[in-house]
Amino acid sequence: MDTSRRDFLKSSTILLGTSATQCLGLAPSISRLSGIDAGSSASARFLDTGWEFNRQSFGGPWEIWNLQTDGWHAVQLPHCFNHYDACDPDTPAYRGQGWYRAKIKVVNPYPDGRSLLHFGGAGQRTTVYVGSTEMGHNTGGYNEFVVDITDAQKNSDDEILLSILCDNSRDLQTIPSDVSDFNLYGGIYRHLRIVYVPAVSIELLHIKTDVAPGQPAQCSVEARLYNPRSIAEAIDLEISVAAPDGAAIHRGIAQLQPWQGSRELARFVVSRPQLWSPSAPSLYQCQVTVRSRYGEQNCLQRFGLRHIEFVEHGPFMLNGEKLFLRGTQRHEDHAGYAAAVPDDITRQELQMIREMGANFIRLAHYPQSALVLDLCDELGLIVWEELPWCRAGVGDQQMRTNTRYLLQAMIEQHYNHPSIVFWSLGNEEDWPNIYPGDGQLTVPEFMQQLQDLAHTLDPSRFTSFRRCAPAQTIPDVYSPSIWMGWYSGRYQEYEQALLDHRDKTRHFLHMEWGADCHARRHAEQPYGEAYAPFLSAGSEAQPSKLPLVKYGDWSETYACDLYDWYLKVQETLPWFAGSAQWIFKDFSTPERIENPIPRVNQKGLVERDLTKKEGYFVFQSYWAEQPMVHIYGHSWPIRWGKPGEPRLVRVYSNCDSTELFLNGKSCDTRKRNSQDFPCAGLRWTIPFAAGANVLRAVARRGSATVTDQVTFSYQTTPWEAPAELKLVEKSRSSELVIVEVTIVDQHGTPCLEARNRVRFRIAGAGRLNDNMGTSTGSRVIELYNGRAALSISSGREPSIISAETDGMPPAFLQVT
Amino acid sequence: MDTSRRDFLKSSTILLGTSATQCLGLAPSISRLSGIDAGSSASARFLDTGWEFNRQSFGGPWEIWNLQTDGWHAVQLPHCFNHYDACDPDTPAYRGQGWYRAKIKVVNPYPDGRSLLHFGGAGQRTTVYVGSTEMGHNTGGYNEFVVDITDAQKNSDDEILLSILCDNSRDLQTIPSDVSDFNLYGGIYRHLRIVYVPAVSIELLHIKTDVAPGQPAQCSVEARLYNPRSIAEAIDLEISVAAPDGAAIHRGIAQLQPWQGSRELARFVVSRPQLWSPSAPSLYQCQVTVRSRYGEQNCLQRFGLRHIEFVEHGPFMLNGEKLFLRGTQRHEDHAGYAAAVPDDITRQELQMIREMGANFIRLAHYPQSALVLDLCDELGLIVWEELPWCRAGVGDQQMRTNTRYLLQAMIEQHYNHPSIVFWSLGNEEDWPNIYPGDGQLTVPEFMQQLQDLAHTLDPSRFTSFRRCAPAQTIPDVYSPSIWMGWYSGRYQEYEQALLDHRDKTRHFLHMEWGADCHARRHAEQPYGEAYAPFLSAGSEAQPSKLPLVKYGDWSETYACDLYDWYLKVQETLPWFAGSAQWIFKDFSTPERIENPIPRVNQKGLVERDLTKKEGYFVFQSYWAEQPMVHIYGHSWPIRWGKPGEPRLVRVYSNCDSTELFLNGKSCDTRKRNSQDFPCAGLRWTIPFAAGANVLRAVARRGSATVTDQVTFSYQTTPWEAPAELKLVEKSRSSELVIVEVTIVDQHGTPCLEARNRVRFRIAGAGRLNDNMGTSTGSRVIELYNGRAALSISSGREPSIISAETDGMPPAFLQVT
Repeated sequence: MDTSRRDFLKSSTILLGTSATQCLGLAPSISRLSGIDAGSSASARFLDTGWEFNRQSFGGPWEIWNLQTDGWHAVQLPHCFNHYDACDPDTPAYRGQGWYRAKIKVVNPYPDGRSLLHFGGAGQRTTVYVGSTEMGHNTGGYNEFVVDITDAQKNSDDEILLSILCDNSRDLQTIPSDVSDFNLYGGIYRHLRIVYVPAVSIELLHIKTDVAPGQPAQCSVEARLYNPRSIAEAIDLEISVAAPDGAAIHRGIAQLQPWQGSRELARFVVSRPQLWSPSAPSLYQCQVTVRSRYGEQNCLQRFGLRHIEFVEHGPFMLNGEKLFLRGTQRHEDHAGYAAAVPDDITRQELQMIREMGANFIRLAHYPQSALVLDLCDELGLIVWEELPWCRAGVGDQQMRTNTRYLLQAMIEQHYNHPSIVFWSLGNEEDWPNIYPGDGQLTVPEFMQQLQDLAHTLDPSRFTSFRRCAPAQTIPDVYSPSIWMGWYSGRYQEYEQALLDHRDKTRHFLHMEWGADCHARRHAEQPYGEAYAPFLSAGSEAQPSKLPLVKYGDWSETYACDLYDWYLKVQETLPWFAGSAQWIFKDFSTPERIENPIPRVNQKGLVERDLTKKEGYFVFQSYWAEQPMVHIYGHSWPIRWGKPGEPRLVRVYSNCDSTELFLNGKSCDTRKRNSQDFPCAGLRWTIPFAAGANVLRAVARRGSATVTDQVTFSYQTTPWEAPAELKLVEKSRSSELVIVEVTIVDQHGTPCLEARNRVRFRIAGAGRLNDNMGTSTGSRVIELYNGRAALSISSGREPSIISAETDGMPPAFLQVT
Repeated sequence: MDTSRRDFLKSSTILLGTSATQCLGLAPSISRLSGIDAGSSASARFLDTGWEFNRQSFGGPWEIWNLQTDGWHAVQLPHCFNHYDACDPDTPAYRGQGWYRAKIKVVNPYPDGRSLLHFGGAGQRTTVYVGSTEMGHNTGGYNEFVVDITDAQKNSDDEILLSILCDNSRDLQTIPSDVSDFNLYGGIYRHLRIVYVPAVSIELLHIKTDVAPGQPAQCSVEARLYNPRSIAEAIDLEISVAAPDGAAIHRGIAQLQPWQGSRELARFVVSRPQLWSPSAPSLYQCQVTVRSRYGEQNCLQRFGLRHIEFVEHGPFMLNGEKLFLRGTQRHEDHAGYAAAVPDDITRQELQMIREMGANFIRLAHYPQSALVLDLCDELGLIVWEELPWCRAGVGDQQMRTNTRYLLQAMIEQHYNHPSIVFWSLGNEEDWPNIYPGDGQLTVPEFMQQLQDLAHTLDPSRFTSFRRCAPAQTIPDVYSPSIWMGWYSGRYQEYEQALLDHRDKTRHFLHMEWGADCHARRHAEQPYGEAYAPFLSAGSEAQPSKLPLVKYGDWSETYACDLYDWYLKVQETLPWFAGSAQWIFKDFSTPERIENPIPRVNQKGLVERDLTKKEGYFVFQSYWAEQPMVHIYGHSWPIRWGKPGEPRLVRVYSNCDSTELFLNGKSCDTRKRNSQDFPCAGLRWTIPFAAGANVLRAVARRGSATVTDQVTFSYQTTPWEAPAELKLVEKSRSSELVIVEVTIVDQHGTPCLEARNRVRFRIAGAGRLNDNMGTSTGSRVIELYNGRAALSISSGREPSIISAETDGMPPAFLQVT
């Protein structure tokens, strides 16, 4: 790193003018790093169908086509081979070989054209064969890569015998580390396409921008060619740039000799730039057409114009204005699909994040699919994208080479996305007992190498890192570990924890905070009976009087209070740049088998299938723009207490005032005051009727009115020790049946705080829809409020389901 | 191969005088090939306990001790990690990494002594680590090997952190081939010991013998040293040899400088040798004591004296007398254990083979454990031991190196066993679609290399091969593939098939014949109604009138007839050296998933748990010496037919005459005549009573009388199409419950020929005892005579079992 760069980074305020669009160039071989333009005129098609898969070890590609064995079955791509076992309570998720095979028609329309397989990402190490010949290999589960199969042998039908090995065996030479607290999935879990390009084509196209608030934007277009036959004939280039509204703002042509490396093709000025921001995510387009006697290729790229700045010990600035980063985080993981999240679910998830009011997202802990980055651009979500150097330590030379390759891939491939502001170099590199490596480099030394490489590849963005105390001064932006109220301390100590760190870190973000909660588990008194009055006391409740809980009860109630407290505090700190709650959606992990849902990190605001938990609405009440109101407890069918005993009703709303009705009768209207914890003052302590109750909230902001309603039963009979399981059919739609187990005492009274661990089994024709990692999709689960449900696919014939827990007889239920 | 050896092998009769005992030397490193003397005074202990196992991939030994993960569980050695999934109907048996870890105390009693890990065999590739340091590696699943851990780092408690990786991933460089029709198991499935020896010790001890009938035997003792520090001080040797009755027949002492390679230590003559044979398996003992200032080592070896000869196109001769080889075959595989067959079960199995009357066994298709060879020596079973070069083709240079290593290991390690007569070079190397390899050697060329190596290492025995038509003249002894009545032809064509091959092969054995049969499936008319009179006709039944069945009905009935026919024919061929039926015990295979018991080769005479099938008694009736009688159908609870219709009763006996009683009334006495097919004339065609029947057979040989009895029901109600499954508890002992599913028609009449494929499931507290590969231990199974049973481990709480088949509702049964 040269001195000027060092000085630049040491200045009190970093001013980086940049904008970028998605890199849509073509990478010719796995040593290249780029993506491909799906929308270009280069003929391309998705290779989604026609595949067979087998999750076993094979002795190489010859066996794929010649060995008689079972296990082959049809799959569609994208496909993750841990889609079912990711959170199996009994068996760790498979890590080993998975093989795909297909006969693929290859008919290249270009004379001397190149035929390329473009992988959007495959885990974790991928080798491509045609027949018995290896065509290419990629190490890394989250980068795009290209394998040139132009010279592959075809049969008389122009087909190739394509087999692809994905291997996610444990391996110390690759990242993420095996110590990771998330699954290192296997499979071709992002889109695979075959792309035909002319003999000479564009491989990589970067739009570089220089934006200062209130000034015209300076832009340039750079490109790298893919020209494996070293064709020397001149090519014609046509560059056209369009504003977000489609208006042409630049057009140029050129005739050039094919070049090596990156070359600037054009420069232009945007006099009145439409700046990209969360509130107005404006996207420009740049199209480059390459023509030669070998054919024509069109590359269509998006980019944005924006200016970023980070005040030392202070806030983040976008386009010259302070922008408080309201963030959450995302793993690429979904119930039933694992890493192969379908595109429509990805769209739904990012939309939900935006509707919650977030403007910031960390892609934890690895680069995510092209669609995710496109959606962040379109929705206006500022991105912290991360190299998966996480709890890995510094391995041997090969590990370090692989890691640098993946950093380069991330930056080159995602360079053009205006949403990306932070290139994170990793996470938790001070974890206990990480691999000692070969001792040639320390963690800070290697981080410095990565820092230098990132700035060389992209001086326009910040590097960042979360949690690595010995190296916290190396990255541009740093987040320590602050988990007050969960892994350490009390949530009431959050502000002090922030202040303690503020001055140690020049550019401070707070990445990761939150709490585990078992969806559908609710608490009347999350802090025990003695502290109930404090939460009920309305504005009289002073923080200093609040209970000193260090680790919650895994109820949604505790988690909501924690979120509420953090969000309340964050509103009051003008110097604070922002944070990202951990994590938007529950996700699977090889660890945490003892969790209420085994192998699921349950800190999500939504379940692993996007079912909202209560916490989602707490965030919405602080961040969302659209008016909303939500009564706590939509998944709380039975509340309990003594007859006539006042009970706390929590309501979350971003409206000015909310009126609550119990069984049709008003319980008063409350004004929202974010600093009146909990619920920003929207809480009522009222006695419920024994039996059925209806709560209705009506919230008003100006002329807008929004409402919410919950119905529940109020149980006044106290329960004794759990004595018996009961299993009933709760609902049915077509062949899907939801069964629910409940636990009762010797008198048959529901035990509403029971947490027994229950296992479901089935005999007969039906199937458990298990291993989903959700509160209604796990065959081993802790009861939430004395109950747990499971979805069953019932056949045409009957099944019998059992539920078991220690110390009592199983319950049985016949389902037809 | 030199000319004299070539000429020697070409002579019309091969005369090989030899005798050998088990090699009990010490192999110092994995490049050595020898075994270890368990009975020597070198301090040794079994490392059976204290292990944890994990069947996952790990990124090396560091992760074994530092990575937090579940899946670790306590195991005892020997342990095969496919013990449960070997014949899982739904999932192919796991092939990948399995890791063992233990803290092992290492306290060597000798000054400068060597500490050795001795593996009896582990599948399929094994790497040994102490801490993170690799101590040794072995390729091959069936050889003994030794890893020297003298220099391993110990903690303050004299313990080492030992981790052992067994990998049975598919691999084209190792044998057996992945095309194998048996499972390539993983795990430390034979005994592992730690052995302490002095700084200089004996590594390999061979007793070479030269025996001619009626002559004194010439013997010599050869030894190889293990002396890794190249100690030069003289050592004292004491050699003593004892006859089978314990009498000393030789004693010698010597003082020698440590030597390199193999060296003759003694020569001696046994003037009146007690020859080893199946009828008198006499074993000599040789003890060599090594003394130096580094300590004393005693090596105790067994050997035998015998003479073998093979007449060209004629019989096999042992000690100058013709010995008809009555053989069967064995895989190292057992229900619930897979390759880790417990010693007591191995003893029971070999004893059962001997009691059946066999004198010959093929260890298919790989060298088996030291105990098996010891038992063959003791029981008098002549052995065909086999290099697992089976359906592999000729791979690359590494594959060929591995294969030669394994041939050398087999011969060096098992050289001293007098039971071994044939070193088989392999099996089925003309299989369709075997790996084409690198094209540098053809199968015959490589076989010739192996043939030469085998004769160099051991000129005293025959090489052999089964099925490789292009190379059939290379091995000393050859067996073609003859499967009349099963894979080809009719069993009545067996004699002609033998004659067709007799003159093509100088030394001809017939390895592999038999039939699959589903245990407990029986047929009233295995050839259809039209042919029933032929089998019932007693001595009027001429072979030429018998039905021309090419492929049986998987009933035990058909299999018994086939065995009966083969055995009858073999008795009449004085030129015929012998055969080995395929196979003694059902065993698991990755193929044959469509079998009545999925993934089980069902050609056994006993089930995979040693439960005898009917065929066992057919062999006994021809071969056994002890008088026996057996009425066919002990597992046939319901026979069927019209009221009063004559039904065939089959009886197998080696006695002179047998009298049959039905319901207490004599049905006549029959004389045994082996050529009166079927049942050597011991068959009765009689009408049964409707309902309960008792059959009793009384057989006499001289003054000896043996009896057998079966009870069964006779069903006269014909059945219509199967309509309903019924599930009942059949028996119970402690927590083990046997449930049985039956299939009935719309009137409730049992469908006694139904073969529906049924699947069992369970809900509640109990567990299916499935994946056993037996007729009462598979959760997916074809009905035998309209029924199938399964063993359930019932807990203290109730369970519900279901049985399903296509096209009808499941049956349920509650078991408490």
